[in-house]
Amino acid sequence: MQQYPVIPKEEFIDRQQKVKAFLKENALDLFIAYADDKAVYGPAYARWLFNYAPHFEPCCILIPAEGEAVILTGPESDQFIYATSHCRNVKVINEFSHPGEEYLFAQVTTLESVIGQMRKELDRDISKVGIVGLEMIPHLLYEAMGAIFGPGNMVDIEYQMLKLRAIKSENEIRVIEYAYFIAEKGLQAAIRSIAEGKSEREIAAEAEYTMRRLGSEGMGIDTIVASGVHNTYPVLARTTHRKIGQGDLVLLTIAPRYEGYHGALGMPVILGKPDKAVEEAMTAAIEAQHAAKDALRPGTPGHVVDRAARQVLEKAGLQSHVQYSAIHSVGVIEFEAPILTSAYRDEVQENMVFSIDIPLFSAPWGGLRFENGFHVTKDGARPLQTVQPEIICL
Amino acid sequence: MQQYPVIPKEEFIDRQQKVKAFLKENALDLFIAYADDKAVYGPAYARWLFNYAPHFEPCCILIPAEGEAVILTGPESDQFIYATSHCRNVKVINEFSHPGEEYLFAQVTTLESVIGQMRKELDRDISKVGIVGLEMIPHLLYEAMGAIFGPGNMVDIEYQMLKLRAIKSENEIRVIEYAYFIAEKGLQAAIRSIAEGKSEREIAAEAEYTMRRLGSEGMGIDTIVASGVHNTYPVLARTTHRKIGQGDLVLLTIAPRYEGYHGALGMPVILGKPDKAVEEAMTAAIEAQHAAKDALRPGTPGHVVDRAARQVLEKAGLQSHVQYSAIHSVGVIEFEAPILTSAYRDEVQENMVFSIDIPLFSAPWGGLRFENGFHVTKDGARPLQTVQPEIICL
Repeated sequence: MQQYPVIPKEEFIDRQQKVKAFLKENALDLFIAYADDKAVYGPAYARWLFNYAPHFEPCCILIPAEGEAVILTGPESDQFIYATSHCRNVKVINEFSHPGEEYLFAQVTTLESVIGQMRKELDRDISKVGIVGLEMIPHLLYEAMGAIFGPGNMVDIEYQMLKLRAIKSENEIRVIEYAYFIAEKGLQAAIRSIAEGKSEREIAAEAEYTMRRLGSEGMGIDTIVASGVHNTYPVLARTTHRKIGQGDLVLLTIAPRYEGYHGALGMPVILGKPDKAVEEAMTAAIEAQHAAKDALRPGTPGHVVDRAARQVLEKAGLQSHVQYSAIHSVGVIEFEAPILTSAYRDEVQENMVFSIDIPLFSAPWGGLRFENGFHVTKDGARPLQTVQPEIICL
Repeated sequence: MQQYPVIPKEEFIDRQQKVKAFLKENALDLFIAYADDKAVYGPAYARWLFNYAPHFEPCCILIPAEGEAVILTGPESDQFIYATSHCRNVKVINEFSHPGEEYLFAQVTTLESVIGQMRKELDRDISKVGIVGLEMIPHLLYEAMGAIFGPGNMVDIEYQMLKLRAIKSENEIRVIEYAYFIAEKGLQAAIRSIAEGKSEREIAAEAEYTMRRLGSEGMGIDTIVASGVHNTYPVLARTTHRKIGQGDLVLLTIAPRYEGYHGALGMPVILGKPDKAVEEAMTAAIEAQHAAKDALRPGTPGHVVDRAARQVLEKAGLQSHVQYSAIHSVGVIEFEAPILTSAYRDEVQENMVFSIDIPLFSAPWGGLRFENGFHVTKDGARPLQTVQPEIICL
C-alpha cells in the first residue's frame, strides 16, 4: 500500500469548476457553503472544496459563478487557512468573531461588505444564491444572509451537491482505501488488547494509537469500545472506564479520518462464549451483510439493497432492533448520502463507496453492529478491508 | 493523585436548582440550552447540566422553573442519553432528525408538541424563555422556537450562566486538576518523542496515547504539534506528516478533555539551539506569563492581568504578534469566559481557573505559545502543573 495518498490540488480546483458549472446551469450567482468543527458533519464542504478543516471558528465558502472564491472566517483562522489549504483569498468577518474576545490587530469586515465588494469587482448582480450546509447555519448568520439576498433568493442545493460528492474519483478511492487500511489496523489492535480487567478506554487507546501512527487525523465518529449489556444497548456509546469481564460482549466501532475521508468498521467480540441470543443475532447480522453486499452493484435501486438486509433480519425476528437505516455512503462525512433506505429509489452507481452497517440495538442482551466498507465496481461490491464479519470469541 | 475523580450526580442536580432559581428571580418560565458535538464549544451546557456529551445528533435541554427537565434529541440518541447521563426524561423531536434517514421504530414528536404538553402538565403558561448556546442554534430550530414563544420572549442569558459556571466547585477543581495532570503527562510524552525525522503526527500519537490511557476522553482543542516556520506561523495548526529537522522550532499545544473538563498546556521546544529572535520571544513570553500569574489573584480587575502580560511584550517590541486575548477560563470549554481582555473590568474571584496563554504568532520565525493553568486561591494563582515555562533545547 502506497503511504499517504492525498487528493491533489487540481482535483479541488476541478470540484470548484463543477460547482461553477452548476451555478450557471441553474441561473445562480453565488454558491455558499457553511462549515464548522462539528465532529461528524461540520467540516465536510470546506474539506471537499479547499482541503480545509475548520477548527474553533466556523467558515463560509463563497464561490461566484464567475470570479475568485473566498473563504470567510473568524480572526484566529485566516493564517490557519493559508497554511493548510490552497485558498489565497480569506476574509475575517465580524459574524464569526468570538464574543468576549478582543483582537487588537485583526482586520475585520462583514458579510454584507464582502458581498458588496464582490458585486462591485465582478460588476454584476449577485442575488440568487445556492446554499449547502444550510441545516447547520447558525440563525444569526442566516438572518444576515437573508437581509442581503432576501430569503426567497436563497436556494438549498444540498441534494444536488451530495450527488456530485457521491461518485468518488480515483484519488478519492485511494484515500478512502487507505482510511480503511488504517481502520483495520486499529480494529486489530483493539481486538488484540481485549482482556479481562482491561478498561474500554484502554482498548480505545490502543486502536487510536495504532491509527494515529499510520496517519489518522482523528475520528469521523468517536471510537466506540462498549462492553456489557448497559453500554452496548444504545446505538451510540461513550467509551468508559468500565473493565471488561469474562463473558462480556464488546462492541468495537472504529472510524478514522484520513485526509478528510473516512473508513468505518464495526465488529462485536465476545470474551468467552456468546449466549444463544447473541450468537443468533451475530449470525443473522453477518448473513444480512452478505445479502446486502451481493445486492450492492451498479444499476440496483437503493431500496433493494436495504430490503436484502432487512429480509434476513426479519426472518430471524430481529427487525425491531434495526434502529436506523445503516447502509450509507462514506466520504468527507463518515455517514453521508446516499443512504439506502426503503424509500431510496435511485440506482447504485459505479465508484460510490458504501458502508454496510448492520445494527442490532436495544436488545435484552445489549447491542452490536457489523460494519464494513465496499467500493462499487462494475463487477459488484469490492471489500475495502481484509477482515471478514465473523463471530470472534477470545 | 486519586484516580478518576468525577462530578457526583448531586452536583448536577444542584446546578439545575441554580438555573431554576435564576428563572424565578428573573420571571422566566423556561430555560433552553442548545448543545451539539462542535469540537470546542458544542457540548458545554449538556455536559454541565446532565453530564451528557452529544455526538452525531444535537440536543436541547429544557428546564422549566417548576417541574422536571427534559432533553430533546434525535432518533439515535435517546438510549445514549439514558445510558450516559442521569436524565430520565428524553424526547425525540423531528427537528433533530437526519434528513435522508429512516427510523422505522422511533417515536418522534416536535418541539411545539413538547412545549404544549409541558404547559398542560404544569398547568401554567410557558412563554418567557431564557436561552444559552443561542449563537450556535441552527436557524430552523430558532425559527421553530420563535413561532412558539415569539422572538420578543426569548432572552439570551448566556452571560449570567457563564458567571455561574465561572466559579468552580471543589469537585470541579479536582476534575480539572486531573485534566492538567493528564495534559502534563501528554506534554512530557510528546517532548520525549521529538527527534530528527519524527513526524508531527507521530509525536501527537505519543501524547494522545499517554493521555488516553490515563483516562482522557478526547481533546478540548485538537492536539497541535507544529514545526518549522510555515506550520508554527498561524494561531491554529493542523498536525501534519512533516518530519522534524535539526534547528526546528516545535510548538506543542495539548488540551485533553476529561469528564467534560479540560487541561491546556502550550510549550515550544527547539531541536538544537534557538535563533536569537526565537530566544528573545521565548524569554519575553515566559516573563509575561510570570507577570500575569503574579497579578492573578482575587480582587484584581481582569484587565489588570491582561495589562501585566502585554506590558512585558510591548517592552520587547512583540505586541503585534499577540493575535488574541489569551488569558481565559477553563472549564467545560477549553477556552471559556471570563476572558481577561483590556475591556474586562470585573474582578478575578477565588476558585476561578485560568489558562495564562502567551501567544506570539505571525512572526518571521513562525509562532509559539507558553500556556499554563492556574487555580485562583485566596493566596494567589496556584499552578495546576509541575512543568515550568522554560526554554527547552533538545
